[in-house]
Amino acid sequence: MSKEITSRAADYSQWYNDLVIKGSLADYSAVKGCMVIKPYGFGLWEKMRDQLDKMFKDTGHVNAYFPLFIPKSFLSKEAAHIEGFAKECAVVTHYRLKNDPNGGGVIVDPEAKLEEELIVRPTSETIIWNTYKTWIQSYRDLPLLINQWANVVRWEMRTRLFLRTTEFLWQEGHTAHATAGEAIAETKQMLDVYAAFAEEYMALPVIRGVKTESERFAGAVDTYCIEALMQDGKALQAGTSHFLGQNFARAFDVKFSDKSNKLEYVWATSWGVSTRLIGALVMAHSDDDGLILPPKIAPMQVVIVPIYKGEDKKDLLDAKGKELAGQLKAAGISVKFDDNDNTRPGFKFAEYEMKGVPVRIAMGLRDLENGSVEIARRDTKEKTAVPMEGLPAYVSNLLNIIQQAMYDKALAYRDQHISRADTWEEFEQLLDGKGGFISAHWDGSPATEEAIKEKTKATIRCIPLNNPPEEGKCILTGQPSKERVLFARAY
Amino acid sequence: MSKEITSRAADYSQWYNDLVIKGSLADYSAVKGCMVIKPYGFGLWEKMRDQLDKMFKDTGHVNAYFPLFIPKSFLSKEAAHIEGFAKECAVVTHYRLKNDPNGGGVIVDPEAKLEEELIVRPTSETIIWNTYKTWIQSYRDLPLLINQWANVVRWEMRTRLFLRTTEFLWQEGHTAHATAGEAIAETKQMLDVYAAFAEEYMALPVIRGVKTESERFAGAVDTYCIEALMQDGKALQAGTSHFLGQNFARAFDVKFSDKSNKLEYVWATSWGVSTRLIGALVMAHSDDDGLILPPKIAPMQVVIVPIYKGEDKKDLLDAKGKELAGQLKAAGISVKFDDNDNTRPGFKFAEYEMKGVPVRIAMGLRDLENGSVEIARRDTKEKTAVPMEGLPAYVSNLLNIIQQAMYDKALAYRDQHISRADTWEEFEQLLDGKGGFISAHWDGSPATEEAIKEKTKATIRCIPLNNPPEEGKCILTGQPSKERVLFARAY
Repeated sequence: MSKEITSRAADYSQWYNDLVIKGSLADYSAVKGCMVIKPYGFGLWEKMRDQLDKMFKDTGHVNAYFPLFIPKSFLSKEAAHIEGFAKECAVVTHYRLKNDPNGGGVIVDPEAKLEEELIVRPTSETIIWNTYKTWIQSYRDLPLLINQWANVVRWEMRTRLFLRTTEFLWQEGHTAHATAGEAIAETKQMLDVYAAFAEEYMALPVIRGVKTESERFAGAVDTYCIEALMQDGKALQAGTSHFLGQNFARAFDVKFSDKSNKLEYVWATSWGVSTRLIGALVMAHSDDDGLILPPKIAPMQVVIVPIYKGEDKKDLLDAKGKELAGQLKAAGISVKFDDNDNTRPGFKFAEYEMKGVPVRIAMGLRDLENGSVEIARRDTKEKTAVPMEGLPAYVSNLLNIIQQAMYDKALAYRDQHISRADTWEEFEQLLDGKGGFISAHWDGSPATEEAIKEKTKATIRCIPLNNPPEEGKCILTGQPSKERVLFARAY
Repeated sequence: MSKEITSRAADYSQWYNDLVIKGSLADYSAVKGCMVIKPYGFGLWEKMRDQLDKMFKDTGHVNAYFPLFIPKSFLSKEAAHIEGFAKECAVVTHYRLKNDPNGGGVIVDPEAKLEEELIVRPTSETIIWNTYKTWIQSYRDLPLLINQWANVVRWEMRTRLFLRTTEFLWQEGHTAHATAGEAIAETKQMLDVYAAFAEEYMALPVIRGVKTESERFAGAVDTYCIEALMQDGKALQAGTSHFLGQNFARAFDVKFSDKSNKLEYVWATSWGVSTRLIGALVMAHSDDDGLILPPKIAPMQVVIVPIYKGEDKKDLLDAKGKELAGQLKAAGISVKFDDNDNTRPGFKFAEYEMKGVPVRIAMGLRDLENGSVEIARRDTKEKTAVPMEGLPAYVSNLLNIIQQAMYDKALAYRDQHISRADTWEEFEQLLDGKGGFISAHWDGSPATEEAIKEKTKATIRCIPLNNPPEEGKCILTGQPSKERVLFARAY
């Protein structure tokens, strides 16, 4: 089975698609640009979503649900928002079908045309701030700390499973505050939540930073981001947290009376991560044999495969396998005992390698006699004979070890791929050779940023938080610069 | 605060709207027919969703996610499906906006017209069965037991919060089986899951039955349902489970090879419940002072309200309140200690009554001295002095008592409102007087059913499962009938 996967060396992009499809994460659909998230992929998303949801709630947020549709006129209200965004949208113009009078199925009823077109939400700032207007009158109504789990649609011409699809699933937090300081603190807090989630659960090291003006979210005063590095040396933006200032409050006229009864515009943030994270997870950790999933979010942490010799003592193996599975389950480990006897063990091994199950336990008749099992780690492929006695503690500990090892490996790779370039030649060589993040001086102008992007396809991923000041000269223009920024080619 | 609620006697429909809005469950939105589910209402939905999800998983189902959009042509594939359904849909015709060249915001880009229009899913049988075609080849691929939590859109001209909205949230299970028997068993199993959820968690007694041909889901061979009774004597369909036969498999050409290598069409079911359940919950239990929520799904089971006398011993009350809240939380009870001192206790009492919090604990200085608290049940409004010592066990037990009492009360009401009518006069009198379910003979013809509906607005809610055979005469036509069916006016 693993032979069917294109290797990273041969075609990285095809390797990625093979993993997503053959690893049963997702599938193409009949609707251009939209994907089907398959049960295994959705199981992974559920684990990620539930953990993030817990972290949002632990920081005082609650969930709500706002409409899928946005009146077209709303998108015109915040000038920068519509300027930089929201053009490639699904537009609902009619609300009824009818039978084709000439036979042959249904047609759109021309009489059921909407007076004002509705846009399928590409993001929900506008509809939410229009709602907040009715919810916020006084400082007592603040802060409002609301998150929404939802599907959104941004029409894409060139799509990639998980990484860029027309419809995707995400969460979007939208908070309202009495002061700029509070809103900025919230923006940063949620960036930290995202970074903690990526690093502790996805085993994905990230760089926290702030976007340049031209990479900023349309309508934001500042966009903070976490940036991760994929195995092909390209960067991937894994989450963003925006300080929106009073822009949306002004656009939707949302004011509150403060303690001295003075009317003020409300301060806002928004922040989101999406199913794109699954793409990042796949590309950061997997190998040419399939997915490698971190134990903390793997839908199935352990699989137990019995090695039957025909019917000989099959009952004994099954009984022991179920007993061990029960013990692991009782220890809070998600485990599958695969007693399907239509499939050979070798096929099963390849299948679970493909799916990235962190720990595989194999058990044959000799193991049964010895009171031991063979444990294989998916990440390193190491195999060890382990006594059945005390298995739950052993596996529990091993899962932690794997989680940490995956993070360490990704971190070492990432750190080896942050390079400094001081000349344009170095910059180009690094980009085309080693790849990764390049720390270089930039003169601070959007025109230079654009020129670099046109020449090399590299963008400024972020200005890292706590960036040390350093005098230098822009790699392209030679103009003075006060700090380095991080460039990379990116997804 | 409670004075603002219209009473049931004065205007039942306005009472319902008042509860939903003032109980902070939902709000109207800027988009006609779409609502905003507020944090408190969404907290309730999360509790319901999580419990249902657990019950689905316990019966072997997994979650997945399918596209929001359905190509228009798909809706024409299953003749009965499109005939009976799916006309009032949101239709996406364009995929881009552009700046209005005459200024003034954005307009739909006429050049970005889709070749084939996309329908926002009103239900997903078509797109899912089109996908199953690629997933199912052999009997080894069956059964496929998949559920999806999603938003769906059915254009509605007259909407009611939760009960009938253009967009709503739901789950839709779509399963595929090798035999009719297996599919029918699945259909019935999911009906039982819904009934168990309604009765054990929502404290809502339901009647299980099967729909008549004219009330059947478009494309189904049989539609099973659970029917509940509201306090105004109207019925509400709380969930449906459909046996779809091979209709969708034929429409989308989904065949599997059985063990003898013969190609066969796959057998299907689908089943769903939606945020409409929240409407049922509100109408079944609440009173003129606000919501009454069953403890098992209440977002907040207990609230503790300290009764301050100015600043006197405020610290002591706060310390004790937090200690008790901590004890309850440790016992798995969701609790809020409301130490907001901008609001008077009376206002808080009214607020939590409005929100239907099952148990309120009040605690003043004298209580502190006596080592006791005052506990008020939301359902009966009974108040009792209870020692602080052993409070968690007391409250835990009380929550169970309330859950059971709410069910018993709703059951008694429901059972008192199932009447038998043997003549047309009796039938009309019962409908206009007592309301509720009316068990009566019907000649089995859709024309009679339609005539009864036109005359009285009553529909056949279901033919109850295990309905006893009984010879009789149709209440309208006098034609012979073999069993009684349940009529009611319904939401």
